[in-house]
Amino acid sequence: MSDASRPGTGPGRLHANIAALAELNDDPAAGGITREVYTPTYGRAVELVSEWMREAGLHVGLDEVGNLYGSWAGSDRGASYVMTGSHIDTTLNAGAYDGVLGVLGAIEAVHALRARGFTPRRTLQVVAWAGEEPRFGTGCVGSRCVVGDLSRADLDRLVDRDGVTMAAALSEAGFDPDEVRDAVINPSGVHALVELHIEQAIVLETHGEPIGVVEAIAAPHDFRLVFEGAATHAGATPMSLRRDALVGAAEAVVAVERAARASSSGTTVGTVGVVRALPGAINVVPGVAALDVDVRDSDAAAREEVVARIVEESRAIAEARGLTLRVEEIVIDTPVTCSPDVVAASVAACEELQYNYRRMISGAYHDAMILGRKVPVGMIFVPSRGGVSHHPDEYTAPEELDRGVDVLAGTLERLCR
Amino acid sequence: MSDASRPGTGPGRLHANIAALAELNDDPAAGGITREVYTPTYGRAVELVSEWMREAGLHVGLDEVGNLYGSWAGSDRGASYVMTGSHIDTTLNAGAYDGVLGVLGAIEAVHALRARGFTPRRTLQVVAWAGEEPRFGTGCVGSRCVVGDLSRADLDRLVDRDGVTMAAALSEAGFDPDEVRDAVINPSGVHALVELHIEQAIVLETHGEPIGVVEAIAAPHDFRLVFEGAATHAGATPMSLRRDALVGAAEAVVAVERAARASSSGTTVGTVGVVRALPGAINVVPGVAALDVDVRDSDAAAREEVVARIVEESRAIAEARGLTLRVEEIVIDTPVTCSPDVVAASVAACEELQYNYRRMISGAYHDAMILGRKVPVGMIFVPSRGGVSHHPDEYTAPEELDRGVDVLAGTLERLCR
Repeated sequence: MSDASRPGTGPGRLHANIAALAELNDDPAAGGITREVYTPTYGRAVELVSEWMREAGLHVGLDEVGNLYGSWAGSDRGASYVMTGSHIDTTLNAGAYDGVLGVLGAIEAVHALRARGFTPRRTLQVVAWAGEEPRFGTGCVGSRCVVGDLSRADLDRLVDRDGVTMAAALSEAGFDPDEVRDAVINPSGVHALVELHIEQAIVLETHGEPIGVVEAIAAPHDFRLVFEGAATHAGATPMSLRRDALVGAAEAVVAVERAARASSSGTTVGTVGVVRALPGAINVVPGVAALDVDVRDSDAAAREEVVARIVEESRAIAEARGLTLRVEEIVIDTPVTCSPDVVAASVAACEELQYNYRRMISGAYHDAMILGRKVPVGMIFVPSRGGVSHHPDEYTAPEELDRGVDVLAGTLERLCR
Repeated sequence: MSDASRPGTGPGRLHANIAALAELNDDPAAGGITREVYTPTYGRAVELVSEWMREAGLHVGLDEVGNLYGSWAGSDRGASYVMTGSHIDTTLNAGAYDGVLGVLGAIEAVHALRARGFTPRRTLQVVAWAGEEPRFGTGCVGSRCVVGDLSRADLDRLVDRDGVTMAAALSEAGFDPDEVRDAVINPSGVHALVELHIEQAIVLETHGEPIGVVEAIAAPHDFRLVFEGAATHAGATPMSLRRDALVGAAEAVVAVERAARASSSGTTVGTVGVVRALPGAINVVPGVAALDVDVRDSDAAAREEVVARIVEESRAIAEARGLTLRVEEIVIDTPVTCSPDVVAASVAACEELQYNYRRMISGAYHDAMILGRKVPVGMIFVPSRGGVSHHPDEYTAPEELDRGVDVLAGTLERLCR
């Protein structure tokens, strides 16, 4: 199966397998890929990837919440082990690479290491985390279970858009939600975890660099700003007698951008991705306007300064306009600093391969962020064309994928020695 | 039926009839009134109002598109006639007064004029226009037919939210859409039209005045601004690499307010009532943001200056942010200046009654705006509590309604002499 010009890395197989996995799709008519966790289609994907893991000589098993593990036993059974992987579920109408690369690329890295005659001292575990995408509102449910973040009660609380609880979805997929605690792993047994992923932005593309070595994973602080004024007639209400909630919210949208740009860390990002104006008629002054705000940074203190400034400016805007402001928390996650050992291993791999690389932060969160609270982690990025992600047009060129696999293999080789 | 303390105006009857009409409601569970034109419920409302017209001694008839006319023949059959009325259809989950006051109040004015022994020289026609509210997207369909603005083809083009064409709705209600042209009236036969209406804003309430005498009816220029940037990952895309369509649109929302406030007429209003950001996820930078903008004035030149400034500023915003901007026209209507004779008649009525009044413009449009393009028109406003309109909480106190009827009667008396 391996390519003669690139011994062991089997690029033809990687690309064929990405394409084969993309065929397991609940909504091909939409143009992209829909394969949500715990669906029958997801189950078939798990079977297919299990088969590919076995072909790579891995010992395959599922845990109690559907995380898929493939192990390559190390020579030193007493040594802490190394993990690598990502996820094979998708959002709605998504692309072919997000998550999938980190799982299938890890399998390719195993092939590559075997081909060059490497024998790991530490056991290497390839993993496909269940439910990184937020079918149940919260993302990374599989990895959250593994670090003990989700209880049996949480599985009843988390529901998807059709009202199906995570517990019911687990049962339907053949798991027992009462066994959720058995999925928890002992962090002290893990030497390191490394995740290969597409960048999902245009930093590498903009700088013409093939590899990103992630030094920190930003975490979001998400909240909602609800401005309330008076819904009055858009024709009949003079400008001086208005309490227009949307104009206040619009000033707050601009304030989010301004506050993020002025961040002391220089790495904070702030986004309003969702806006609602009610009643939402062209002839009515909006009486209510709500913004969903996402602020992220690998530097939690800088992030919180930006959040505080946004809230403060929003209060001033509301007061000046005779509006009321309600601030509702959505989620606050903790950023993760990557392990210097994992970063050093990836850097060494890049240098050996003579690949240019960029030290960067991951603005997106990943299962590695969840695991990173308990075990040493790192990430390797490859470029995403145009930064497009969670979209049918998501694309990374074959040679870019291959370079990522090369760096992953070199990193794992160093970590498993 | 008349109240002893207010001979002839029958306030008890007016308020009882407003309440009785409010019972004809397709969605009472929602808390407000839903009575869209050409529905069976609307048909029952037309029957009830016809009965009340007959009780006032009016000769009742429907035209080819369902406009309801009730005539009080004048002594001079050759003289041009006077019209007064409004509409008895509602938007969804609406209030009890919008439109209804102008029809039932006109019937009360007839009772009042009869009670004081008035004999009109000119024929007086009370009218309930069909479909002032925009069931078919466009408002004032009944009055538009009467001035010849809607053709048979338009009746097939105009559809409601369920895809029912106006032509089909007319047929269903027992009318023949092929006869639409027979509803056109000869404008030269009309001496004047006056419409009594609730203000739908808080100008009168703010100034503590009971009556508004309308000198001009503003008309809207509605358009859509569509900003397009790049939908990228909200975590992974640094601030410097974004093309966020929503931040550009937010600056444009603020620019709409600023441009309206700076208008040379001082009466322009500008509103963004509808905003859409796509894809609309908290973790995605909006790639597209669309604003529906409504700019109104009784001064068309000042209005167009404001529209031009908004478009110009929006283009500058888009250019500065690397966004594209598309401007889509929605509707451009022509403002109407009220007839000095009608205004003078209303002012004289107010002075005789010793009611304070305010000369003002109507920011909302009404059937009188449509008719005003062809015949001399005027309007009389009464206060709306809190400016609430198109909402179950719409309210005008009984004594305020009565004052409006008094002024309408005095106006009609002068116009029909």
